[in-house]
Amino acid sequence: MPPSDPSEEARRVMSADKSAVSRALNLVEDRRPESHARVADLLAVLQDAPKAREGHRIGLTGPPGVGKSTLTSALARALRRRGRTVGVVAVDPSSIRSGGSLLGDRARMSFDPTDNGLFVRSLATAGEVGGLAYAANSSARVLAAAYDIVVVETTGVGQSEIDIVHVADTVALVIQPGSGDVLQFLKAGIMEIPDVLVVNKADHDELARRAVADLQGALRTAHAVGAGGGDQDAGWDPPIVATSATKGTGIDELIDALDRHRKHLAAKLAERRRRGEVHWALDLFSRKHGEHGVSTLGGLKRLKARAERDLGGDDTPLSLCERLSREYVEALGKTANG
Amino acid sequence: MPPSDPSEEARRVMSADKSAVSRALNLVEDRRPESHARVADLLAVLQDAPKAREGHRIGLTGPPGVGKSTLTSALARALRRRGRTVGVVAVDPSSIRSGGSLLGDRARMSFDPTDNGLFVRSLATAGEVGGLAYAANSSARVLAAAYDIVVVETTGVGQSEIDIVHVADTVALVIQPGSGDVLQFLKAGIMEIPDVLVVNKADHDELARRAVADLQGALRTAHAVGAGGGDQDAGWDPPIVATSATKGTGIDELIDALDRHRKHLAAKLAERRRRGEVHWALDLFSRKHGEHGVSTLGGLKRLKARAERDLGGDDTPLSLCERLSREYVEALGKTANG
Repeated sequence: MPPSDPSEEARRVMSADKSAVSRALNLVEDRRPESHARVADLLAVLQDAPKAREGHRIGLTGPPGVGKSTLTSALARALRRRGRTVGVVAVDPSSIRSGGSLLGDRARMSFDPTDNGLFVRSLATAGEVGGLAYAANSSARVLAAAYDIVVVETTGVGQSEIDIVHVADTVALVIQPGSGDVLQFLKAGIMEIPDVLVVNKADHDELARRAVADLQGALRTAHAVGAGGGDQDAGWDPPIVATSATKGTGIDELIDALDRHRKHLAAKLAERRRRGEVHWALDLFSRKHGEHGVSTLGGLKRLKARAERDLGGDDTPLSLCERLSREYVEALGKTANG
Repeated sequence: MPPSDPSEEARRVMSADKSAVSRALNLVEDRRPESHARVADLLAVLQDAPKAREGHRIGLTGPPGVGKSTLTSALARALRRRGRTVGVVAVDPSSIRSGGSLLGDRARMSFDPTDNGLFVRSLATAGEVGGLAYAANSSARVLAAAYDIVVVETTGVGQSEIDIVHVADTVALVIQPGSGDVLQFLKAGIMEIPDVLVVNKADHDELARRAVADLQGALRTAHAVGAGGGDQDAGWDPPIVATSATKGTGIDELIDALDRHRKHLAAKLAERRRRGEVHWALDLFSRKHGEHGVSTLGGLKRLKARAERDLGGDDTPLSLCERLSREYVEALGKTANG
């Protein structure tokens, strides 16, 4: 019987008890209302975990086939060698459709099962609307309470279902030589500029050099058309790192680039995470009650101001969404009977 | 003063009166509730237009930069030479972000302004949630009532905001040589297999041949992993056409491929469009009232069965969504006061 006392269960997650972390992620995968409520209770306790405040949440994104899983695997091993604990979660829509690719990806990751400083999990979201965003946000918060570094790995290009920028402190975009379409999305301003860029499968010097140069060109164009808009961090010039995950080259440079960005964020980190919390709260409420819910409670701008005010105390995005939901249903009841 | 009698306005749209078509698309762009209601009234009349029943709705999609606009332009001109009337609408998220790319794209299209058999329009959707899907669906239905061929041009790869397969009778995916990311999305089963594939910018024989071969390989892999699932049309083998929109080569082959697919659909067309109507109705309702709305009215499966039953008579997706919306608000009123 798993313990259902959220503070006891949270304590175990914070101490990186693997079976507790695993149970918490099982809850995230289970979309029944009672599990949803237990995730909300758990996250309310976990948000004050010391590791959650000090740690680093990294989003690793890019099109399928660029070797994100192998790279994540190499990254996690290298981080462990530096003595840091690592939690990895892969939230991937391809696992829903084909079934096969998830297993294939994970099979390429091999880790020491007795290492308590490393946790790896793939989340299936069974294709529900909003399932990916909920899974990515919730699991990142569970792992952040338990491990120094959290890696959220997800497939996406352009407007994808997960806004990884609102989940992670640092977004690393992974491409491979010949990823012309991603460059086009960046140039057109449809895709936000990531914090770190990785050219993986850079086994051949010439191709890798060219891919890096193409990426530099795309970034210049993206800046020129004003992509990223107000969210763009003026003090940060996104580094481009060439890696070969299979050969293990470039991984140390990647860690250094990620660390530099974490250090760069410093005082801005709390603000960036607050934006992520606000975004998730509004996303949860919009998915639950749609445009009508948003307009009934005064519109997106007003809800945003309210989330900015309320989040940060005992509230989490999940608990705030619940409260807004009750208000909405009450307001509708009055309208229908007024 | 524009006439506000929907049947009079619809008659003008059906006679391909350019200013009436233009006014209708202005209404689509205007998201105020009163304009929304007028679009609903208009589409209710337009759905019975003879052209809407007999015509062909083509979706042209692909990543930015592959030359979709130039290709659409060449396609429209070639169709006009064959005596067919053409309505084009570009619904593009890049136009929202950068502002510049929209103008740039359209500037590359040059048409005879006195030709009453051709209508071209770019829709701005001001970035609202669901704005793209609403714009694509509504504008396709307006143009379908007025012109023989409708082309809906949109940027997308993987899970994009518009399910173009539910808007168009025939989906043509446009790539260029070197579009490795799109191939990966196809292979991973994240992207549905289109009805027609176009390799544009096929100016160099060698590159074009290789791009076509890569595409064939990706389709085989996609079929092997079961991408597309139940919706896949067993009797149709998606043709691959190499074009150079700037040189004008391959355009006739593209028209032939599109015509063959339209002919292939024949008896299945009504069923495919019905699926599109059902999908749009559920999409509209979900966006308006979220997961809570869907579950309150009995869940997605039940709503789908109801849409399948109700659509086809006088109902349109917009009017059905309105009725479901009233039921939901009533149900909530009873709950809140029961």
